[in-house]
Amino acid sequence: MATNDTPAASPTSNGEIPATCVAPKGFRFATTGAGFRKSGRDDLALVVSDTPAVAAAVFTKNLFQAAPVLVARDILARAPKARAVLINSGQANACTGDEGLTNCRATLELVAAATGLLPQDILPASTGVIGAQLAMDKWAAAVPDLAANLGRKDPEDFAKAIMTTDAFPKFASRTVELSGGTVTLVGMAKGAGMICPNMATMLATVLCDADVEPAAWQALFRDAVDATFNRVTVDGDTSTNDTVFGLANGASGVAARGADLAVLGAALTGVLGDVAYMLVKDGEGATKVIHINVAGARDDADAELAARTVGHSQLVKTAMYGRDANWGRIVAALGRSGATFNPAAVIVSLCGVELFRGGQPTNLDFDALLKEPLAGRDIVVNIMLGNGPGSYRLLASDLTHDYVSCNADYRS
Amino acid sequence: MATNDTPAASPTSNGEIPATCVAPKGFRFATTGAGFRKSGRDDLALVVSDTPAVAAAVFTKNLFQAAPVLVARDILARAPKARAVLINSGQANACTGDEGLTNCRATLELVAAATGLLPQDILPASTGVIGAQLAMDKWAAAVPDLAANLGRKDPEDFAKAIMTTDAFPKFASRTVELSGGTVTLVGMAKGAGMICPNMATMLATVLCDADVEPAAWQALFRDAVDATFNRVTVDGDTSTNDTVFGLANGASGVAARGADLAVLGAALTGVLGDVAYMLVKDGEGATKVIHINVAGARDDADAELAARTVGHSQLVKTAMYGRDANWGRIVAALGRSGATFNPAAVIVSLCGVELFRGGQPTNLDFDALLKEPLAGRDIVVNIMLGNGPGSYRLLASDLTHDYVSCNADYRS
Repeated sequence: MATNDTPAASPTSNGEIPATCVAPKGFRFATTGAGFRKSGRDDLALVVSDTPAVAAAVFTKNLFQAAPVLVARDILARAPKARAVLINSGQANACTGDEGLTNCRATLELVAAATGLLPQDILPASTGVIGAQLAMDKWAAAVPDLAANLGRKDPEDFAKAIMTTDAFPKFASRTVELSGGTVTLVGMAKGAGMICPNMATMLATVLCDADVEPAAWQALFRDAVDATFNRVTVDGDTSTNDTVFGLANGASGVAARGADLAVLGAALTGVLGDVAYMLVKDGEGATKVIHINVAGARDDADAELAARTVGHSQLVKTAMYGRDANWGRIVAALGRSGATFNPAAVIVSLCGVELFRGGQPTNLDFDALLKEPLAGRDIVVNIMLGNGPGSYRLLASDLTHDYVSCNADYRS
Repeated sequence: MATNDTPAASPTSNGEIPATCVAPKGFRFATTGAGFRKSGRDDLALVVSDTPAVAAAVFTKNLFQAAPVLVARDILARAPKARAVLINSGQANACTGDEGLTNCRATLELVAAATGLLPQDILPASTGVIGAQLAMDKWAAAVPDLAANLGRKDPEDFAKAIMTTDAFPKFASRTVELSGGTVTLVGMAKGAGMICPNMATMLATVLCDADVEPAAWQALFRDAVDATFNRVTVDGDTSTNDTVFGLANGASGVAARGADLAVLGAALTGVLGDVAYMLVKDGEGATKVIHINVAGARDDADAELAARTVGHSQLVKTAMYGRDANWGRIVAALGRSGATFNPAAVIVSLCGVELFRGGQPTNLDFDALLKEPLAGRDIVVNIMLGNGPGSYRLLASDLTHDYVSCNADYRS
């Protein structure tokens, strides 16, 4: 049931940098500063699996797909295997036409030549300014150093190198006991809103050392992404570059088959849930993570419609920023969502306090009851529509002065 | 065609208070201060037609419909005639259950008794805090003064009395020559976002002294509302109270029949277009009116989908606030809109400068070209999807620091 007061995600890290982060076996990390970004910090990241890994991916549904999205889809359509993931920040290589595709393929050639991989072994992703062509001279200058430090970096370095406007690096790991032994997963993500001021994208890569069949891995991966990345929203925008990669290389020597798959899937969902939570926490200027739980909908699709309308409502998001128990905005968003229900059957509660039932306010002294809960970071909105078994959970950020500042500033 | 650079609405007043405002014949106005709002200004408004007027109305599609919406729908379902419109600000009478309905009907009884009308002659509308019951003692105390000053007020007074967070009163008028003589229309509206901090609603009333048949008036009215009020957005929210009333009382003695109906309809659309433009201009904290013109869509519905996705995009709205020619955000919003098109066929221009064509930036020096245009109030975004004859126009406000301040403040 989605109507308890437990946050939808159960982050182990609560968005803070984990004290410890374990890496799965058989992966080596490299990062370097290519100068794509002005800050001078690392902005190019590579992870290489010692052996071909089973690969899964989910890409943006935006009709304008960035060059690296098109190239990565093409690579995976030929074979669901990969050796490496290559990510640059600072330039999105989106809306760049044929030249962008040629440039993307050229970066894979450069990295392949420097590392002994084949270009088609490497999955690319990019994030940064839309519409600018890649700075190929900077790529050519940076790749030797990238290749040289392969194995000298870790997942935290990788997560830092792919940041754009992120306030903190996002990574999480899990070890999990399968019947044949221990396997490890690590996830790394970036994103803090779609674009700021012109920076695009949510990107994530999850690595695993379990030995798992391609079809099984891909199914676990799709379910995990659906339960996590597809249930967060900062501003409702979907970028041209959004990509999640999942690589499982089997380096642990531990097979995941049969009943172990559910155990592995839970850990995978846990890792992606952790980093997805961090994305919302770091939503541009965000001060809150709003956990929207809709239950009692006609079906799950209707529940999703209701949850997304509430989670995208500027009025709900500003009320949460203002610590205002303004249930009228939640109710009004439900009423325009397109979900089917009887208004008199709806129950809305905020942080465990029931505010609206039977078409009327409950007349509790909710301002007093909610003063302390609404000052916290995690705000739970429970909505019962009273029309069926459908449910959905969504994490949303609030809408703040800093969001406007971040997104209204001139590109510089 | 929707791809020229003319703003979608052609406001005569540009949102400023008109120098002159004419009133149609046979309507008398009254306002008073009932103390619903703290400011002490007038917050109760009445307009009475000397004779029964042909009535038309459009109400919110929100599933949670405020008591006055339910009562007004009920009255008009019995007969498409009315003598009066009664509007209070300060209390929305929304989400107030059976008590709210009883109270709404009681206010009609009070005003009917004081003015000699019948309760079913009066169309009610309310705007203000959701969830609070009407202060019936204040109504009882205020209605005698309201009735006493009937005929001593004008449309501007009416527009002022229905304001909540509005920065300025919204009204516009037209005189129009029909074959039988001159008729006059006046429109009055309020609204500046759905709710702020808990104030609801866009309300409008348009009055006309033409003699027009009910079915013809209602058809003109629906078309005019669809071309104006249904094509503006501040924050995408639809309130529980949104209402537009249209009364035509025939007091001019001039009949509108046959070819005159098109002339009257154009004037009606002009008046509603003027006040709808003012609503966007006064969008909470807004500094811009963004005119989004989509053409070349598969059909009009697809064009509307594209226009609304762009107009509701927080990222587009903040970019316009920041005077940033950030076409990538427009393109990204189109790509996720659900409209069907070939990305390579899309053309996007901003204030007449073509920024994106053939899947790539046009590489004009658009920052220089657009510096001055983007500093203006009216911003024109033209989008050609290249997939058919469909078109749509939408007016949207920008998203500003003041919007967040207005909506995040504690209710007080």
